[in-house]
This record gives sequence, structure tokens and C-alpha cells, in this order.
Amino acid sequence: MQRGEVRVTDNSTLPASRGSASDIEEGAAFAPKFDAAGLIACVVTDAGSGELLMVAHMNAQALEQTVNTGEAWFYSRSRQKLWKKGETSGHVLRVVELRVDCDQDVLWLKAEPLGAGACHTGRRSCFYRAVVRSAPGAPGAPGGALTLEFRDAGRSFDPGKVYGAADQKQGGLTNHNPPIS
Amino acid sequence: MQRGEVRVTDNSTLPASRGSASDIEEGAAFAPKFDAAGLIACVVTDAGSGELLMVAHMNAQALEQTVNTGEAWFYSRSRQKLWKKGETSGHVLRVVELRVDCDQDVLWLKAEPLGAGACHTGRRSCFYRAVVRSAPGAPGAPGGALTLEFRDAGRSFDPGKVYGAADQKQGGLTNHNPPIS
Repeated sequence: MQRGEVRVTDNSTLPASRGSASDIEEGAAFAPKFDAAGLIACVVTDAGSGELLMVAHMNAQALEQTVNTGEAWFYSRSRQKLWKKGETSGHVLRVVELRVDCDQDVLWLKAEPLGAGACHTGRRSCFYRAVVRSAPGAPGAPGGALTLEFRDAGRSFDPGKVYGAADQKQGGLTNHNPPIS
Repeated sequence: MQRGEVRVTDNSTLPASRGSASDIEEGAAFAPKFDAAGLIACVVTDAGSGELLMVAHMNAQALEQTVNTGEAWFYSRSRQKLWKKGETSGHVLRVVELRVDCDQDVLWLKAEPLGAGACHTGRRSCFYRAVVRSAPGAPGAPGGALTLEFRDAGRSFDPGKVYGAADQKQGGLTNHNPPIS
């Protein structure tokens, strides 16, 4: 995507402006559906390997910044602010292609990761654990229960060094957003 | 994932029950974060090709059904009901692996698609359009504007035949959810 100035309108209070179902699904008009909080989910994959790296949210301004700079910007629900991925870590995501789904309420960013990893825990991807059943008859798990197993969980960078201990500690998960970028 | 009966609790009204940031990010306890509406986003990829197929939402019951049956179930925000992917079309998604992200507010389902396509428009994937800039100087687009270009947009099935004309027509997008499965 070329650089330059593009404006994106938050249509979350103007649902009628998006057009008919056919316009939205089969048309060439970009009419992203921002939710009531003015956000749209964005799935990020590695454009080279296809690996799913992370999912975050954009508001209209983050989308604009992403398009205009060619690097990924998001909106942090926890910190209630715009953030550029990599602003602290240097692990910038360069835009290779941006796609939208049929009903235009999810974005897919194919990106070239310029740093060691996309996840603030130090991994390449945020999806480093699989949901599996606990062993049959395990204590406290009548009828089976779900637990997590690590996969591809090796760290590609040291988050303590990259973000600093204070940032790491401060980066709580009370709001379920990666605290830092 | 083996079949059997597993219970999943909707913790959206019990945020404190999820544990510390460290528990959530580095632990083996599965503590999915359902939002205020009791939903969690689920990214679906083709386990074979890695292709991003769709993004939908699960509530606790949909997650339970998915785990217990080995096939993908979701919650339709538009129809406000549980739905099994493929219940109309036969295009079932067989669970190959389920993952969760660092802060456990997004699921990733690696699936084997048992039908021709995951998208209700007839495509294999819902992400068949790229967001691009309109040509410089295009009428009504001062400073550039964003438009859509079709990519990988060939239909792998005829949605009119699979869903029926009435369903297709009825399946509006007022709520921004794929209307039918």
C-alpha cells in the first residue's frame, strides 16, 4: 500500500451509511464496521510464513495511521489510547496487504514483522498454547476439563530487557489487552 | 481433541476469577475471557493450508459444543443463537487444534473444512477483498481514498443452491454477522 493521506470515518454511530448487504459483501466500497466502542478487530499474520501472530483492535484513527504510514497501529482498550506496534520494542509490523471480510467487520493484516516477535511475552506469536483435555480422572476434573499445553512457546526475545522490568510489571491484564507493544 | 463432556463457565461477570497476569499468560489453566456480552472471538484457519478462513464469536456454550463434538459451533450475534457451522450448508469445520492467545481473549481454531467453502458468499475464505488506494485524482477522492479489490474471489460453491434463495435474501447484514452457516 502506498503512503499518503487517507481519511477513515468512524461509522459506528451511522450504521445506515454502510449500504446494502450486497454493497457490503460484493461491492468495491470500503465500509468497515466499527463496533459501538468505535473499534474493529484486526487479525495479523506473517506475510511470509502465514503464521497467525496476534489479534488486536483498531479505531478509525489507528486504521488511518496504518494506511498512511505503512506500519501497524492499534487502539489499546486497556490504556484507552492509540499505539503503534513496536513503539517500545522496535518490533514494528510493516503492512504488506490489508484485507477485509465479507461483512466488513474484521480486518486481516498481512505484515512483515521487523522485530523478533509480535507477542509482548517474548514469543513470535501470541498463540503459543493449545487447549487440551486434562488426563482422565485427574483430581478435580470430573468428566474431563480443559487445560493448556505450550506449543511453539520458545521466546524469541527477552521481554524484561526489551520493555524493562517496570513496564512489564505495570503491564497488567485487567483489561485483557497486551499491555505494551 | 478427544470427544466427551466438558463444561465451560462464562466468566464475563467474574473477571477476578481468571487469576493474575502471570497465571493467565504463563499458566496451564484455561481461563478464556468472555466479553460483557459473554462472547470471545475465534479466528479460524485451514489446518492444512494455513489459510485464514473466517472470524466468528463463541459463547461458553458454543465453546463447550465445539470441544465436546469436535466440530465448530459459534454464537450468532445477529440471530442471537447458537449455530453449528455447516448446519445448513453441510460445510462443517472439524476441529484439528484449538489455541488461545497470551491474554486468553481470542481463540484460534485450526480446522479441517469438510465442505467447499467457509464463507456464506460461496468463497473458501471470507477475506476475498484487499483494501487499496483508489487511483490518484479519482473523482470524489481528494487526497486519496480507500477502495476494495477482489482477491482469491472465485466461488467454490453456489450460495443460492446451498442455502436457497429465501435464506440468501433473508440473510441480511444489518448486524454484521454471516447470516447463515
